[in-house]
Amino acid sequence: MRQQMNRKICDIETVLKKYLPDKEGYQKTIFEAMEYALMAGGKRLRPMFMYEIYTMLGGSEPDAIEPFMAAIEMIHTYSLIHDDLPAMDNDEYRRGRKTTHVVYGEAMGILAGDALLNYAYETASKAFGCEYPERAIEAYRVLVSKAGVFGMVGGQVVDVEMNGKVPDRDMLKFIYELKTAALLEASFMIGGIMAGAKKDEVDTLCRIARNVGIAFQIQDDILDVTSTTEELGKPVKSDEKNEKTTYITLCGMEAAKKAVKEYSENAVALLDGLPAVNGREYVKWLVSELINRKK
Amino acid sequence: MRQQMNRKICDIETVLKKYLPDKEGYQKTIFEAMEYALMAGGKRLRPMFMYEIYTMLGGSEPDAIEPFMAAIEMIHTYSLIHDDLPAMDNDEYRRGRKTTHVVYGEAMGILAGDALLNYAYETASKAFGCEYPERAIEAYRVLVSKAGVFGMVGGQVVDVEMNGKVPDRDMLKFIYELKTAALLEASFMIGGIMAGAKKDEVDTLCRIARNVGIAFQIQDDILDVTSTTEELGKPVKSDEKNEKTTYITLCGMEAAKKAVKEYSENAVALLDGLPAVNGREYVKWLVSELINRKK
Repeated sequence: MRQQMNRKICDIETVLKKYLPDKEGYQKTIFEAMEYALMAGGKRLRPMFMYEIYTMLGGSEPDAIEPFMAAIEMIHTYSLIHDDLPAMDNDEYRRGRKTTHVVYGEAMGILAGDALLNYAYETASKAFGCEYPERAIEAYRVLVSKAGVFGMVGGQVVDVEMNGKVPDRDMLKFIYELKTAALLEASFMIGGIMAGAKKDEVDTLCRIARNVGIAFQIQDDILDVTSTTEELGKPVKSDEKNEKTTYITLCGMEAAKKAVKEYSENAVALLDGLPAVNGREYVKWLVSELINRKK
Repeated sequence: MRQQMNRKICDIETVLKKYLPDKEGYQKTIFEAMEYALMAGGKRLRPMFMYEIYTMLGGSEPDAIEPFMAAIEMIHTYSLIHDDLPAMDNDEYRRGRKTTHVVYGEAMGILAGDALLNYAYETASKAFGCEYPERAIEAYRVLVSKAGVFGMVGGQVVDVEMNGKVPDRDMLKFIYELKTAALLEASFMIGGIMAGAKKDEVDTLCRIARNVGIAFQIQDDILDVTSTTEELGKPVKSDEKNEKTTYITLCGMEAAKKAVKEYSENAVALLDGLPAVNGREYVKWLVSELINRKK
């Protein structure tokens, strides 16, 4: 299945490239910066889950799902660019490469993020021309809502405000659900919506994604403590250095490992309840992979 | 007409407030920062032109046009927040008030801009539920395209890259057309599209807005030289201080004043060619006002 995953990552990167603007014209630098950030590798989890759920539930129109796949990865990428800025996490490396603002300068880093966020919605709007425009409108609404102040950005804000303070468990859960899980919820839900899933199935997809997202974030906390910079491709022990409260500092390492397992198992159990046409085993494998990942 | 304009500004601000999120929840600070930036006054030119063109061409459904009015002012405002950041223009005051990142900190300034851009598209999507959703989709496409890398952001990028360098006239025109005119083009075009204007009328609206936008930007250059900080509510002589090339440094003050007049007259002449239902005189007055404005 790992080989299959690597092939799927290649396919997704082909889609991403297809939707990026040509690197020509006066504003060439921003096109280059957008590509530099977007094509920096990574697991491509959000478009991958979106596509897998879409096909699992019987979807088969590339023009309907690909714009959303590209859009969600652009949104994820813009958030990383801005997160890495000096005024935010001040990270110079990500995935073993210099971050966008280090290569292109801080002003261009800010603008590259803005450009990708905007271009994500420009790209998503291409799906309005698909066979089921009413599904595309519904999917668009989910995307914009899960990316914004009631989704990812809302989580980033509370995360920034908690810098140096100690959130309680409710607040930490809020941060994890919004900052990390919200975009995954969008991925799963949009896959379902575009495949014509019923409302209760879309709700189930949202719950699955929330479980996956929280498990993913706690695993991230664990790796920050247990991994090495070489393995992870970015500095480790950053939470400790920044005196950041994580699931581990609040509940301990054992509880964290147990939580990752439980959230993942919940997700897999819910997946079994969906009327899959095909490919369910791969999605389940992918969810489980998150538990055992080393970076 | 000035009284009428002030009343219209009040009406627009009521619309803006209506579409802002309630300031409650863990992410309260970002809601406050968004409101601080969005409700900081200003001429509200973009939503005003949008609404005036909409009603001039016979549009009458508030739920169809208001989401776009709020969205375009949110997009304009996010671009100001990010423009003011230390890594960009590093401005501490705007419209006589401290800028968003000065009040809320730089990290929150970045996120407030991101939040407003995203929320703009969340707000615009409310128009998909109006009487003519196909018009709303077309208007949405114009908005997202004029705001992005082929519109406003593209202009900002070239503007940032030209910092300390001397652009030629073509490049300066490119910057003015994208950085300033593009959002006004969106305002005029969306007003027309939502009112059901024909394609050639929408093209004319785009040309009018481009003339208005370039006139507006050159007038901005003029005021930066001739005005005082008190009159303008922001530091003057900033272009000179930053060794910035403007229309004035390239062509001289007299040519600049002449250009403002010509672009404005072009806009007014094109306006006369449109099949207005009512309110044309106010739009023409508003365009002319831009020539004589002192701030």
